[in-house]
Amino acid sequence: MFFHTGELQYHSKPDSPDPVFAKKVQELIGGQFGEMSVAMQYLFQGWSTRGNEKYRDLLMDTGTQELGHIELLATMVARLLEGAPVYEQEKAAKDPIIGAIMGGMNPQHAIVHGLGASPKDSNGVPWNAGYIVASGNLLADFRANVNAESQGRLQVARLYSMTDDRGVKDLFSFLIARDTMHQNQWLAAIKDLEAKEGPIVPSTIPPEWEATEFSHILYTNPETSTASQLPWASGPAPDGHPITVEKPAPLSGRPILKPAPPEAHNTLPAEDMK
Amino acid sequence: MFFHTGELQYHSKPDSPDPVFAKKVQELIGGQFGEMSVAMQYLFQGWSTRGNEKYRDLLMDTGTQELGHIELLATMVARLLEGAPVYEQEKAAKDPIIGAIMGGMNPQHAIVHGLGASPKDSNGVPWNAGYIVASGNLLADFRANVNAESQGRLQVARLYSMTDDRGVKDLFSFLIARDTMHQNQWLAAIKDLEAKEGPIVPSTIPPEWEATEFSHILYTNPETSTASQLPWASGPAPDGHPITVEKPAPLSGRPILKPAPPEAHNTLPAEDMK
Amino acid sequence: MFFHTGELQYHSKPDSPDPVFAKKVQELIGGQFGEMSVAMQYLFQGWSTRGNEKYRDLLMDTGTQELGHIELLATMVARLLEGAPVYEQEKAAKDPIIGAIMGGMNPQHAIVHGLGASPKDSNGVPWNAGYIVASGNLLADFRANVNAESQGRLQVARLYSMTDDRGVKDLFSFLIARDTMHQNQWLAAIKDLEAKEGPIVPSTIPPEWEATEFSHILYTNPETSTASQLPWASGPAPDGHPITVEKPAPLSGRPILKPAPPEAHNTLPAEDMK
Amino acid sequence: MFFHTGELQYHSKPDSPDPVFAKKVQELIGGQFGEMSVAMQYLFQGWSTRGNEKYRDLLMDTGTQELGHIELLATMVARLLEGAPVYEQEKAAKDPIIGAIMGGMNPQHAIVHGLGASPKDSNGVPWNAGYIVASGNLLADFRANVNAESQGRLQVARLYSMTDDRGVKDLFSFLIARDTMHQNQWLAAIKDLEAKEGPIVPSTIPPEWEATEFSHILYTNPETSTASQLPWASGPAPDGHPITVEKPAPLSGRPILKPAPPEAHNTLPAEDMK
Amino acid sequence: MFFHTGELQYHSKPDSPDPVFAKKVQELIGGQFGEMSVAMQYLFQGWSTRGNEKYRDLLMDTGTQELGHIELLATMVARLLEGAPVYEQEKAAKDPIIGAIMGGMNPQHAIVHGLGASPKDSNGVPWNAGYIVASGNLLADFRANVNAESQGRLQVARLYSMTDDRGVKDLFSFLIARDTMHQNQWLAAIKDLEAKEGPIVPSTIPPEWEATEFSHILYTNPETSTASQLPWASGPAPDGHPITVEKPAPLSGRPILKPAPPEAHNTLPAEDMK
Amino acid sequence: MFFHTGELQYHSKPDSPDPVFAKKVQELIGGQFGEMSVAMQYLFQGWSTRGNEKYRDLLMDTGTQELGHIELLATMVARLLEGAPVYEQEKAAKDPIIGAIMGGMNPQHAIVHGLGASPKDSNGVPWNAGYIVASGNLLADFRANVNAESQGRLQVARLYSMTDDRGVKDLFSFLIARDTMHQNQWLAAIKDLEAKEGPIVPSTIPPEWEATEFSHILYTNPETSTASQLPWASGPAPDGHPITVEKPAPLSGRPILKPAPPEAHNTLPAEDMK
Repeated sequence: MFFHTGELQYHSKPDSPDPVFAKKVQELIGGQFGEMSVAMQYLFQGWSTRGNEKYRDLLMDTGTQELGHIELLATMVARLLEGAPVYEQEKAAKDPIIGAIMGGMNPQHAIVHGLGASPKDSNGVPWNAGYIVASGNLLADFRANVNAESQGRLQVARLYSMTDDRGVKDLFSFLIARDTMHQNQWLAAIKDLEAKEGPIVPSTIPPEWEATEFSHILYTNPETSTASQLPWASGPAPDGHPITVEKPAPLSGRPILKPAPPEAHNTLPAEDMK
Repeated sequence: MFFHTGELQYHSKPDSPDPVFAKKVQELIGGQFGEMSVAMQYLFQGWSTRGNEKYRDLLMDTGTQELGHIELLATMVARLLEGAPVYEQEKAAKDPIIGAIMGGMNPQHAIVHGLGASPKDSNGVPWNAGYIVASGNLLADFRANVNAESQGRLQVARLYSMTDDRGVKDLFSFLIARDTMHQNQWLAAIKDLEAKEGPIVPSTIPPEWEATEFSHILYTNPETSTASQLPWASGPAPDGHPITVEKPAPLSGRPILKPAPPEAHNTLPAEDMK
Repeated sequence: MFFHTGELQYHSKPDSPDPVFAKKVQELIGGQFGEMSVAMQYLFQGWSTRGNEKYRDLLMDTGTQELGHIELLATMVARLLEGAPVYEQEKAAKDPIIGAIMGGMNPQHAIVHGLGASPKDSNGVPWNAGYIVASGNLLADFRANVNAESQGRLQVARLYSMTDDRGVKDLFSFLIARDTMHQNQWLAAIKDLEAKEGPIVPSTIPPEWEATEFSHILYTNPETSTASQLPWASGPAPDGHPITVEKPAPLSGRPILKPAPPEAHNTLPAEDMK
Repeated sequence: MFFHTGELQYHSKPDSPDPVFAKKVQELIGGQFGEMSVAMQYLFQGWSTRGNEKYRDLLMDTGTQELGHIELLATMVARLLEGAPVYEQEKAAKDPIIGAIMGGMNPQHAIVHGLGASPKDSNGVPWNAGYIVASGNLLADFRANVNAESQGRLQVARLYSMTDDRGVKDLFSFLIARDTMHQNQWLAAIKDLEAKEGPIVPSTIPPEWEATEFSHILYTNPETSTASQLPWASGPAPDGHPITVEKPAPLSGRPILKPAPPEAHNTLPAEDMK
Repeated sequence: MFFHTGELQYHSKPDSPDPVFAKKVQELIGGQFGEMSVAMQYLFQGWSTRGNEKYRDLLMDTGTQELGHIELLATMVARLLEGAPVYEQEKAAKDPIIGAIMGGMNPQHAIVHGLGASPKDSNGVPWNAGYIVASGNLLADFRANVNAESQGRLQVARLYSMTDDRGVKDLFSFLIARDTMHQNQWLAAIKDLEAKEGPIVPSTIPPEWEATEFSHILYTNPETSTASQLPWASGPAPDGHPITVEKPAPLSGRPILKPAPPEAHNTLPAEDMK
Repeated sequence: MFFHTGELQYHSKPDSPDPVFAKKVQELIGGQFGEMSVAMQYLFQGWSTRGNEKYRDLLMDTGTQELGHIELLATMVARLLEGAPVYEQEKAAKDPIIGAIMGGMNPQHAIVHGLGASPKDSNGVPWNAGYIVASGNLLADFRANVNAESQGRLQVARLYSMTDDRGVKDLFSFLIARDTMHQNQWLAAIKDLEAKEGPIVPSTIPPEWEATEFSHILYTNPETSTASQLPWASGPAPDGHPITVEKPAPLSGRPILKPAPPEAHNTLPAEDMK
């Protein structure tokens, strides 16, 4: 169960309005790796965790904090939109500096949201649940999580150079720090699980299900690719087995599909195929 | 540049038709972690790689193989649909066993694709590029890649128990093996890059951009959560700094947004807010 | 800022597993009017509220509770999937009763989520933020909210007849009750705002912006439609003005668009159009 | 059955080209509450109406008019794109005023549509049927309709300030007027149905299906939220029952999910969970 | 401007309820080539037509009829859902024949739409405007149109074998006939335009924009592909030029991208790339 | 099975950076008719081809080349983004010329992709598989293919005028040429199949399935439409039958749907409907 208090987890107040930057900040709210993604990803993983209560709690704790990060960024967007002449864009267009600024804002901030944040990315594409991962296998999912925190911290870092506003940078410094912690925690959790299960997910596949003769071949053609020169390509794989290098080549023949039944109304077979 | 030959990389021939299972196999083609995702993810990462030619080549080699895996699975789906009475579903419904089988197939296999594979997942949702990741930061992206291969191998493992068909299982044993190799290679590549850059992505953020006092706090309330009991929570973080545990609490006050301008036609402020 | 505690807001435990019903319950999680929609809708409305703190707090309070409702339903789905032979569907298909049950489940519950809930609707379509509304105008948005609660309560009512499970019905009885309250609260809030602003949103449009001669015409042709016989069609409109009935007819001529410039490479104008 | 005549329902001719404003007008065509949404929403509601022929006719009449409104706006967009140097954007970029204008247009108007309107919103996101509502319950759906007309009129009002073009404003004055009528008609219809059924949708739920002890509680914590101070919070609810205020608190315990079967290949339970 | 009359263009009444077939019929309403697609495609093409009034009228006439076809199919779906025990699915599941039938229906028909049609395809994926084409070039668009009518007629043909219901078949016989006419009309229009412009769209590209040395090469490798044996491959192309066959080979070298600036926080170049 | 070599099929190097044009080029990568669409469309058609090996090979050959075209365009986008001040947009905004340029770029190129190409269209909407067609009927699909190549060549032609960069134009001249060939090849293939099957798809519908009395009527009202004046409207149709012109009129009555069962909780029938 969830509770809310009106105070913010951290400061979220820009020095000045900047509707063009507000558009860009949307990536951190409703983008593929925005805060909506990490919040929902961790909560759905937590709700599905079976038999690992401490990790369930870690997921719920972290997901709940990410809800607060959406709040921080939604507040930032709302304030970046305050006090700018967003409803006078046509007039502004006659002044090229204002025009350039206005031309780059998200029109939905003015038309649809009345100066509020949008649950969409920096191009106005709605957030969707196809972005998130909750598989029931914690090692797999923690790898998704460390990726999400890596992509997220990278995006904040890029946006940091794209503004001079001290208030915005203050919030970003907090998000960068929290993403450091979250990368750390998922990396620690991965190490914990890999120590128990080994590095290959899932660890529970019986050997007879796997065509192990193909499990450690790096398919690459040295005539067209330099991949086999990567230093680790000649050493043992992370799971301890030696890696071999082979040129890719077909192991089976041409597939010939049978003609479809008449009810499919497909093209009839060519004369020479009958 | 790409080339194609008609032979398949591996065998892909079921013993018997099974249109219900064909629906499920679609997850491996057009699902979030299906072969379309890994193929496109690796190719887009490769096309964007700057200054790391060996990794560029590894990405292109692997993405190209994944194209061949779409081919294997599309062929399998086409053959699972061969010879089953898919256009007589209404008649079949009178025989409950056939009816149960027919009721569970993907109607688009019959109506839209004429017994061919679909670029969609096991529920018929079209694949979309919002699933894939290509950030320009290889360590971040290789984490995405090892996640994708973990989720993919997990899904094949689950499907393996859901069929008795030896031909299907033969193909799955190959895919399981290749996902083992691909997890290995991305894990090796991650180790290589972490050795150079350290574990926190991106490694290039100047310290003064980060509010480092928040970089190693595990926010969790021991009264409501057991997360702080995780073994690694009391040790140093993967980046070497000590982790501290704190109860989450607001660090800022309630945000009060300014009223919108009249042109927004938002609700006017309440009397007591003026 | 948000907090979470491990206890549930209400009981969520079915008497028996039922993977087919689990698929249907997904509509209440990730459907257009599922709990993800109301949670996110109220939170985004709250974060954008300017100058109406009590309504901001009402939105945040209610959105936070809806997060707990996602949790209740995700738990219910996870438990409906427990203990059913979902990974033996092929074998089960030979027993028609089990086959019928198995054929109707969501394959992603088994393949993708490992018996956990999915952030998608009852057909497996991912939730997306295009479902939600946050305009900055509270009267408009509260109308969206009372609609969402009406659709939501309606869907729970329909699902109530589709199961015999007492544990499921117990949870549904709670959700029905909460949707009663939420309809009540948004209706009360609407009455409050309409008393101040009148019924037509937005109330702030200057009269000279409106072609008022068209503001109270019911366009309907009594020769083809019975709409003009509706009892209110002859009385005053809710805003107090009399309604008149007119047959629809064009008020302007045929639009003739100018040919496109050559750079558009559009079809050239027909001879008789030059 | 439908008929079309070449004349327009109203004038739709701007004084001057303005490709940047054309991009914004797209919100009224293909946005969440654009004319495609109301047209399709009313038609699908009409086609599903059972036993209420006058309302069916009202829905079909109104939906048909909204088709004509798409036509008005598509014509406006086509004309706003006429005569502007949209295919010389690169050259234009050297003149900052033209550059600012050109930089803000929708590139698909030039590249994809050859100066025609697009079935997408102001950010270029395609319209989709996930926006619309047709439940079979007219009171629920009329609430969706009055919301749609409220959001629609609000968006036109915001766009009205964002242009100086008299031709555009003339069309907008007509759309504002029609949205007034449509809000009026759905409000009148709601009043009609509420008089028969009462305010809570659906009215047909048997009392024993509802945990009525939770039907009139406003969950809010006066220590963190001002919502309980709303004037109506102390009066009777719209359905006549008294409202009580309670602090939110869990009514159930922590859910413990059972471990998944081996075929799920989920993470194994932790030692202390076995 | 549009008009509507309550009568249907054709009969649309099944002999018996069949909720499983209702799910399949949805493909013809909201699928990629369903009636929503052709209606919206023709209308948007019509609204953008410049300087070709007769084709504009043909597009508007045909689009308007397609609106009536959505109506026919929505009515059919509503009637296929009438009188079936769709709200007793759980009980029905105990009778395997009923269970098989019920398990195959679209759950949203019962839960979301209250026995009405849905604006979605046969898997429940919402229709979206990314399906439609309106380019401003009539020859290009008429090719899209003849494709749409070909796919549509093919899908009806496939569904025709999947039912025994005479009422359904009567409606399908009408739709098959209309799709014959529509293929005929777009083929005739294409012939008309090709006679004026030639077969290659757009006909207005100046020769110096085209690397004509590549305009008639069939790239295919006779060692791996039989494509060069197609009868037309040795004749002149439809535009009159001779076709030549060549093995595909690169015409340029390896692209080496420059490193990204530090603000991108991309992976640094490898040692051997500096 | 697929192979890749590092060399490009053609040159892809702009003379100068141009991030605004990079945004527009995205349409050719991830738009409805971008290279991702044609590549995936041809490959899925090829994988489903039954009994027509030469056409299967043609599809695989052409799809494989289109993969190389994605590569060309992804390389072009990556290079158009090189060396431009994309991370200094805020500073740049003070210089109106740079500001206009920067305001028009895709923010995700800087924030998400680190100067790499995106699998999305020119507005940032992700590519999705709902764009592609693979029906199993080759004549239908080749019509889809000639449309795709027509739309694609049209879009390149429009972009050609929108840049002065010789390197970009060089690549476009190659793409224009290849689209000429691909239109030619699909037109030749269509001619081949039409010669065998006739022009109406599918050719295999038995005459008794078709209400042939409606197969050659052009429904158009000469009072409101000029469509009947099209030259071909008075001649025989492409399938050889005479065309007749009729005014559209209903052939059936008003549909009256039965009330829903109580479990639907739909609106009850009006008094006069009982």
